[in-house]
Amino acid sequence: MPATSPTKQQLLEQGMAMLLKSGYHHLGLAEILESTGIPKGSFYHHFKNKEDFGLQAIDLYMAGVHAALDACLDDSSLPPLRRVRRFFELVQDSYRSEGYLGCLLGGLGQELSGVSDAFRAKVEQCISTIARRLAASLEAAIRDGDLAPGTDPHAMAELLVNCWEGAALRSRLRRDPAPLGQMLDFYFRHASPS
Amino acid sequence: MPATSPTKQQLLEQGMAMLLKSGYHHLGLAEILESTGIPKGSFYHHFKNKEDFGLQAIDLYMAGVHAALDACLDDSSLPPLRRVRRFFELVQDSYRSEGYLGCLLGGLGQELSGVSDAFRAKVEQCISTIARRLAASLEAAIRDGDLAPGTDPHAMAELLVNCWEGAALRSRLRRDPAPLGQMLDFYFRHASPS
Repeated sequence: MPATSPTKQQLLEQGMAMLLKSGYHHLGLAEILESTGIPKGSFYHHFKNKEDFGLQAIDLYMAGVHAALDACLDDSSLPPLRRVRRFFELVQDSYRSEGYLGCLLGGLGQELSGVSDAFRAKVEQCISTIARRLAASLEAAIRDGDLAPGTDPHAMAELLVNCWEGAALRSRLRRDPAPLGQMLDFYFRHASPS
Repeated sequence: MPATSPTKQQLLEQGMAMLLKSGYHHLGLAEILESTGIPKGSFYHHFKNKEDFGLQAIDLYMAGVHAALDACLDDSSLPPLRRVRRFFELVQDSYRSEGYLGCLLGGLGQELSGVSDAFRAKVEQCISTIARRLAASLEAAIRDGDLAPGTDPHAMAELLVNCWEGAALRSRLRRDPAPLGQMLDFYFRHASPS
């Protein structure tokens, strides 16, 4: 990944937090500039417009997701299925630290997919990328006998991220982690053959 | 339910369709009035403001949900678990007729719950009402032996609506019904004890 200037990074971090909390339409350039103390010209040096900024904020969010995936899925001290669950536990930790605002992908996906093909395609691509990475571990779990032979790892990974997104919505509505753990418990109890 | 004037009903139906497609922030009063041919004064006779209108559009959406729940859950020709699945199949039919725009509750819940406690409370209340009605059928399924004894019908109903919301988001992103059926298949395959 190319080095990002500190100014750009600061704008994106602030924007990502604001998008997660309040969504895209509420995101005001003035508010971002005020809270970061960065001048307007600098914003337009780094971003073409608000859409470009929003899409790059999703990239920053995904960098965090990939880091969590790397930390969990490459952890050979855990069996593959446990690595997958560990990833969602890390995500849940970050939801907790944010006050249970749910997932930025689900938030922007719902808010914008009816009005912006750019955001719709971006969010869909991000979610399928996550599913693809998880599928590789599910495939390893099948080889290890921790998932029934004949299980389709891609379909099971898609199912997992989809159900997670619904649990994340509910967790956001209630500001409560319970839906997240309940969903994971059901999935992992029944994904295994025993 | 009190009788609704035809003008109010027409405004709400148009608003509901626009909210489902494009969300709350994109909803413009001018566009609603133009597409219905109803004068502005008439809008403000029926609604205090845009928020009031949006909340009442959710009520109209819920009237449709309750009608579908009535049609399915009261159908004594089907076993209770089949009634629950039938409800989601009816919902899926309506998603199809709309072009797979997902669920209005999930859409507005994600878009607005970070900025409006009124919408957050409303959407949460609607989703838990649906779960409560489904739980009654799951309870009947436990009595019939179609769900394992000891199953918590309320937790299982919450899980079901939550996972559905995630599948509905994905279906919206892809304009594709597949995530909906896959989620239902997994849930009903594993909810049963056999």
